Amino acid sequence: MSLPKPKVTISDVARVAGVSSSAVSYALNDKPGVSAATRDKVLKVADSLGWRPNSAAKSLSDASTRSIGLVLTYDTAVLSVETYTMELIAGLSSELEKEGYSLTIRYASSQKSEMDVLRDWIATGGVDGVLLTNIELGDPRVDLFCDHPELPVLLLCDSSVAGGLPALSDDEQSSAHLLVDYCHELGHQRIARVAGPEALSHTFIRDNAFMEETAELNLQYSCLHSDYSPDGGRRCTDRLLSLPNPPTAIIYDNDIMALSAMRMAQELEMDIPGELSIIAWDDSFLCQVNMPSITALSRDVVGRGRASARALLDMIDGQTFESTTDVTSEIIFRDSSGPLIA
Amino acid sequence: MSLPKPKVTISDVARVAGVSSSAVSYALNDKPGVSAATRDKVLKVADSLGWRPNSAAKSLSDASTRSIGLVLTYDTAVLSVETYTMELIAGLSSELEKEGYSLTIRYASSQKSEMDVLRDWIATGGVDGVLLTNIELGDPRVDLFCDHPELPVLLLCDSSVAGGLPALSDDEQSSAHLLVDYCHELGHQRIARVAGPEALSHTFIRDNAFMEETAELNLQYSCLHSDYSPDGGRRCTDRLLSLPNPPTAIIYDNDIMALSAMRMAQELEMDIPGELSIIAWDDSFLCQVNMPSITALSRDVVGRGRASARALLDMIDGQTFESTTDVTSEIIFRDSSGPLIA
Repeated sequence: MSLPKPKVTISDVARVAGVSSSAVSYALNDKPGVSAATRDKVLKVADSLGWRPNSAAKSLSDASTRSIGLVLTYDTAVLSVETYTMELIAGLSSELEKEGYSLTIRYASSQKSEMDVLRDWIATGGVDGVLLTNIELGDPRVDLFCDHPELPVLLLCDSSVAGGLPALSDDEQSSAHLLVDYCHELGHQRIARVAGPEALSHTFIRDNAFMEETAELNLQYSCLHSDYSPDGGRRCTDRLLSLPNPPTAIIYDNDIMALSAMRMAQELEMDIPGELSIIAWDDSFLCQVNMPSITALSRDVVGRGRASARALLDMIDGQTFESTTDVTSEIIFRDSSGPLIA
Repeated sequence: MSLPKPKVTISDVARVAGVSSSAVSYALNDKPGVSAATRDKVLKVADSLGWRPNSAAKSLSDASTRSIGLVLTYDTAVLSVETYTMELIAGLSSELEKEGYSLTIRYASSQKSEMDVLRDWIATGGVDGVLLTNIELGDPRVDLFCDHPELPVLLLCDSSVAGGLPALSDDEQSSAHLLVDYCHELGHQRIARVAGPEALSHTFIRDNAFMEETAELNLQYSCLHSDYSPDGGRRCTDRLLSLPNPPTAIIYDNDIMALSAMRMAQELEMDIPGELSIIAWDDSFLCQVNMPSITALSRDVVGRGRASARALLDMIDGQTFESTTDVTSEIIFRDSSGPLIA
């Protein structure tokens, strides 16, 4: 393999700065062993000569890209209104920054292209670790990373679907029970849910938990699956409200669909919550600021992003990570839910 | 410089697959010259042997990281509610994907740490190009990139503050005039604005344009500067509404501050827009779905992200880019603005 020769060497910098090569090396690598004045002088000279360590050569020497990979797969229209992803990115990038790590984002318009990106990262070592979100049942990404233990990975999903890979998840089941019990205590007999895509593992777990708990409490329960988009939320709400005996409380799997539904109910001049309770999964600024404000299941998504970054950095550092379930979700009671006013 | 010898070579793969080394090379680099069956076989063998091209060595050979750098500098609390950044990321990453490029995100909690990240990218070639947002007056990043023409950069700001570097901007001045003229036509005599941070160059340009146009039309104009946060929007609105002669129309520099203000006005049981018109800069799903819906100056931020990615890819490809001003902004008339009802 032929390498392009660097134009300016450490010796060149040492000669011009009038210091030893090792002093230059200490200064450029930000290590102790030189005075602040020398360090300053070396950096100025290196900069003026246009010295570049060459990231590729550097990367070969420390075998690290100092970056974590995340693939975005949502449709751009959904992505741009989804607060979840931005909160996750905010948490991830702020925690990674403490170690001087980057977040490497790739957009994939299909599952196939996401797999191509992941295979490329595995093959080339283009990132030091990968965060996988929206795990589906029988997700091919799980098999891929089981076959490639050399690249640290963290899955945001229930450990039951992680194939033994490290996972960080919400306690979806407890949250579902919490929401059903809350509606039941308010006296609702017919509750419905507008869920996320059916193939997602966290949707599956929520689906089961809702069916179990509503059956247990002898409540009517209807569930429609959608795509987290405003339009999807609206269409499902329309179908549910057109039933002969419509539900009196609807739970939405994200804040955006709940907001769309709220808007629709207001256009229909429905009394919220007198005629219909609206509850969102994923609390956000939007739920807080809407009039009426929206009752929501709150999760700390920025904190989840931070914890994910920390877990991946630890794994890259050679530590093992025990899969964890976060049990801090809670209902934030606001104005969009209450007992039925007959 | 010593390089770690790759464990599995193309010759190894060729031997096991029973094909020529050039066939392996074609197959692994996804180039024509081999049948689909051979390609398939080679990929399977390469995968089973654990062949890795080694991104660092690859990067030395094509002198490219195939990534664009973006530094996020907002406070994480603001970042997680800001739709602008997520829309920009959605547009950028989806366009970059067409060329197999990544978006490299770094979070910086201060201007100093942002400068450190940028200097590092320049010194190490860690990205192929950089997008700079939120340009300030006398921004040190402009000088930095003027001194380092070797790294392609695109600024999202008015070309007057770009120091000759390639820039893509909105026509902030025309937009400001549009908004003032609209309020004037509705009959408002006292208008106010809750602006973004005063140091930002686009705030500066808007400030000037508002002062000019309101003076021209002989309107009272008050302006407070804030930080784009919900709380900031609320505090400024409170101050403006406490004036002896409060404004009858307030324009907010982002949607989040307008939503906060709307919430506050509703709590005060003000008639919107009978007593107060509320107008947002940056249309978003939030403005659309709120009750009452919020009149907003609409910009295509996802499209801006796409255009930025395209411009940077072209520059990396050696093409020159002419600074451009986007003149497609328009007011989307909704329910939060109208004439005063005395």
